Amino acid sequence: MSINAAEEEAKLRKFRFTRFLNQDTRTKMVNLLGEIDSTPAILIAEKTAFSIIGDHLTKFSHDLHLPKVSLMERNDIYHSFLATQDSEYGEVKITLIFPATETHIRKYTHQELRMVVETPEIYRELVKPYVEEKRRNGRLDWVYNILEYKSEKESIIVEDTDDVEGFMLLPDLKWDRKTMASMYTMAILRRRDITSLRDLKRKHVPWLKNLRRIIPEAICGKYGGIEPDQIKIYVHYQPSYYHFHLHAVSISHDGGLGQTAGKAFLLGNLISWLESLDGDEETGLESVELTYSLGEESELWQRVFKEINGKGKAKE
Amino acid sequence: MSINAAEEEAKLRKFRFTRFLNQDTRTKMVNLLGEIDSTPAILIAEKTAFSIIGDHLTKFSHDLHLPKVSLMERNDIYHSFLATQDSEYGEVKITLIFPATETHIRKYTHQELRMVVETPEIYRELVKPYVEEKRRNGRLDWVYNILEYKSEKESIIVEDTDDVEGFMLLPDLKWDRKTMASMYTMAILRRRDITSLRDLKRKHVPWLKNLRRIIPEAICGKYGGIEPDQIKIYVHYQPSYYHFHLHAVSISHDGGLGQTAGKAFLLGNLISWLESLDGDEETGLESVELTYSLGEESELWQRVFKEINGKGKAKE
Repeated sequence: MSINAAEEEAKLRKFRFTRFLNQDTRTKMVNLLGEIDSTPAILIAEKTAFSIIGDHLTKFSHDLHLPKVSLMERNDIYHSFLATQDSEYGEVKITLIFPATETHIRKYTHQELRMVVETPEIYRELVKPYVEEKRRNGRLDWVYNILEYKSEKESIIVEDTDDVEGFMLLPDLKWDRKTMASMYTMAILRRRDITSLRDLKRKHVPWLKNLRRIIPEAICGKYGGIEPDQIKIYVHYQPSYYHFHLHAVSISHDGGLGQTAGKAFLLGNLISWLESLDGDEETGLESVELTYSLGEESELWQRVFKEINGKGKAKE
Repeated sequence: MSINAAEEEAKLRKFRFTRFLNQDTRTKMVNLLGEIDSTPAILIAEKTAFSIIGDHLTKFSHDLHLPKVSLMERNDIYHSFLATQDSEYGEVKITLIFPATETHIRKYTHQELRMVVETPEIYRELVKPYVEEKRRNGRLDWVYNILEYKSEKESIIVEDTDDVEGFMLLPDLKWDRKTMASMYTMAILRRRDITSLRDLKRKHVPWLKNLRRIIPEAICGKYGGIEPDQIKIYVHYQPSYYHFHLHAVSISHDGGLGQTAGKAFLLGNLISWLESLDGDEETGLESVELTYSLGEESELWQRVFKEINGKGKAKE
């Protein structure tokens, strides 16, 4: 497909705003719904980071960069100003999704989060059947394709081919594969019997400790500019798919909600929890209560926790 | 002190850049060191969030708002552009710290993080003596002043005056005390014998469960626009001071590193961990291994973990 830049730019100019979808005031991002020639389109705008090229920094407070400056407040040594930035420097990165489907719209719409408490009983009776459903009917084929070298073979950073204890380390889509400060990889375990951290047992501790040691070593062996103790390894609960996998990320990468307590569980602390459990080698994390956050649009919230949390409120 | 806005603004214009201190590309922030009339000053600049006032949104893609637009890439329905923003809209919030001390400079300088593994032995022999030192010589007087109503009395949101199980809930400095989406409070426990989560024991579980229930209820009773399951309660390890306290925060508040796994431990999961421990009522979290992150400038890194992590590397 040959791309005509002027044509694409004209599309953006024709964007007619219809509805505000979401914003992130921390990262300075906004998602808007609109139409281009009566077809739905999503516009995602994000301010760019400051340029830190030396020459620009030396002129930072000049009026060429900040034409207008006004004092908001002064408290002792702290002075707050609001300044306008010359348009030559004030850039905005825009992504246009066009045409946009209902699924895109849902994905870019603000979603409220809720804290939930998953007891072992709730897991066994309500969550586990949901997890099993999510593993059926080819839903994990894309993972098995990776493990069987049918896809993403060229992306493998490192692998251990042992059928039980092995894994495959791949770059996450969010990583540019260069900047080590935002290094983000995913280790997909070869074994297919572990759906999530709920299936981890005391007997898995030696294996997990081995993974904790060799994954950072493998990353550092492949890439320079990072040391093993600058790598954070965690799992998500709930994960986005139910084949056990680990996230191995540069400690300096601010991953937002994906790394937050209530979503991310450090591998080191899961190992420690398993070791401290009262029970034999078959005892595991299916026997503990877990607190975590869920989006209101998620199936698990809709099907399971909406009613449970609602009952709690009715009792008060 | 009467403030002359023009005078303060002139200070900013006189800022002479000397050294780059730090940046956050996610939040679009940059910290610069410089001088004003030969005295050190720190300039902190942060781009502002997009205005989401209706009128502005309807004109979002117009050339009045985005004078120049250029296509970067197109992949199927995804179109990426880089646009310049008219200076009327491209604002920058600036904080000037002047005069700035060495302590300010250290605080605003980039700090590398490291993952550390604190075994029960390391805690007992190296970390606990450090914690005890940090509790001596009046270092916690500011906390005791709050608990004794000698300071911040007017800020108390709610309190439970029981000497053993009671607490005092206060707004965190980071919260504007209005916006519920960024609600951030701190519960300071009345009892003075718990230094951190390391001192929590099985016998504390009923008390902790009670706190987990009543703190969200108290916040919702005081403020509208939030429900108990939209409040996340966690503790930091390492905490910034060694008198046990809880952070109770709106779940939609993206707290960055302060809420990240490796720093924040959800109260719910600590309760669950305590309940699952093998031992009697006196068994507690001092007996488990903890994985967390530490800044390289922190005393604990310098004194304890720098050497321990270094040894690990030497062995390889």
